[in-house]
Amino acid sequence: MTKESNKFELSAIGEIISPYTEKFAIPRQPGLVTAAKSAIALSEDCNREEILRGLEGFSHIWIVFMFHKAMKADWKPMVRPPRLGGNKKVGVFASRSPFRPNPVGLSVVALSHIELHQKRWHIYFEGGDILNGTPVVDIKPYIPYADSIPDASGGYAQESPNTEVKINFSAQAQQRLAELKLQHPTLQTLIEQVLAQQPQPAYQRDQDKTFGMTLYDINIQWRKAGDEIIVADLRQIRA
Amino acid sequence: MTKESNKFELSAIGEIISPYTEKFAIPRQPGLVTAAKSAIALSEDCNREEILRGLEGFSHIWIVFMFHKAMKADWKPMVRPPRLGGNKKVGVFASRSPFRPNPVGLSVVALSHIELHQKRWHIYFEGGDILNGTPVVDIKPYIPYADSIPDASGGYAQESPNTEVKINFSAQAQQRLAELKLQHPTLQTLIEQVLAQQPQPAYQRDQDKTFGMTLYDINIQWRKAGDEIIVADLRQIRA
Repeated sequence: MTKESNKFELSAIGEIISPYTEKFAIPRQPGLVTAAKSAIALSEDCNREEILRGLEGFSHIWIVFMFHKAMKADWKPMVRPPRLGGNKKVGVFASRSPFRPNPVGLSVVALSHIELHQKRWHIYFEGGDILNGTPVVDIKPYIPYADSIPDASGGYAQESPNTEVKINFSAQAQQRLAELKLQHPTLQTLIEQVLAQQPQPAYQRDQDKTFGMTLYDINIQWRKAGDEIIVADLRQIRA
Repeated sequence: MTKESNKFELSAIGEIISPYTEKFAIPRQPGLVTAAKSAIALSEDCNREEILRGLEGFSHIWIVFMFHKAMKADWKPMVRPPRLGGNKKVGVFASRSPFRPNPVGLSVVALSHIELHQKRWHIYFEGGDILNGTPVVDIKPYIPYADSIPDASGGYAQESPNTEVKINFSAQAQQRLAELKLQHPTLQTLIEQVLAQQPQPAYQRDQDKTFGMTLYDINIQWRKAGDEIIVADLRQIRA
């Protein structure tokens, strides 16, 4: 890192590999979608076993990353958090929005295991909310006595988002799930957990239209029908 | 922020004002020394009221900062955490050491209040563990349902450090505390809380010698006597 007056240069120490190949499907906080299996693949400079030694003793880790897709966008002093229905503004420092003066992201995830894969050390984790390809700048152990404050008051985001919604798969979607089972064994649970977060913007939630999102290389079409969500179809996107 | 290949440039959005004018006295995690009253003073680019609007609804905030005093030091793949007595190594990503590939620091602190002071917005907080003058790169609200994992397992740092130690002030130290009362009303509690963390390195803890540390502009001399700590003297350092 170099310092020039008040500028600091960071380098990627790794890269995220995740099912979230587009922003739309990403849950708004980590921990909500446990079926999302992701990994950090260490970059060449940091690709050594000893740099991670002792990390497996921790159940959870912090990932500090760059919102690389938000980088070119100008930040604004106030943002509209999805939790406030998208129609009320708060200061950007009172939000976890990616569009901030320094687009640094912070997520706690459940550490699964550490493994060498194609000559790169991979830290596998669950419950991530990070876009595939995201540059990681730091990994820290989660230290419960310091980091866990269960009685903290969380302003407008006090309660976990409501995820009670019934999700049905059409006959066609079920057929596709069966075909993809070998490649993506937990796809159904992942889709259910992601849709329970209602990824569509609040003002569109009750609209009678078909939405699409991509997980891995699979495009998923769904619509709302009363209180239920119907997954109409899945299609593998050919690269 | 600019992106060149895998490099990212961050700017300071504020600066820490804290009693910790040297590294030695800093507790090893935030939250341990509640008498440390600190603040973030927003930098010019971010110095506007609306950027913080809604933050006061949160009891705790994350401060993302640069370990600016660690910047020139080369990081090593393994470090000796104080919690392991300084004689056992772990990987740097399994530690919260400041000497890391990207020297980014992360602390959760209790938000006290927000106030305009000498034309700069100040976010006052308690329980900080950050050096005076530290550049801040981000502020985020602490969201308990996502960030608080009370049953996480914390590896070698599972338990909060033991802070049961009796601290006595010599007659001379008591006299100095009385003289400094107007300028530093909570100094005694701050000294007690800092010394309870045993700032001296583990291998020196039981040595019969006098240690010194600086808080604000005050040098504090103490020594261990059996199971107790005796604060021998305080001296204001003239700038």
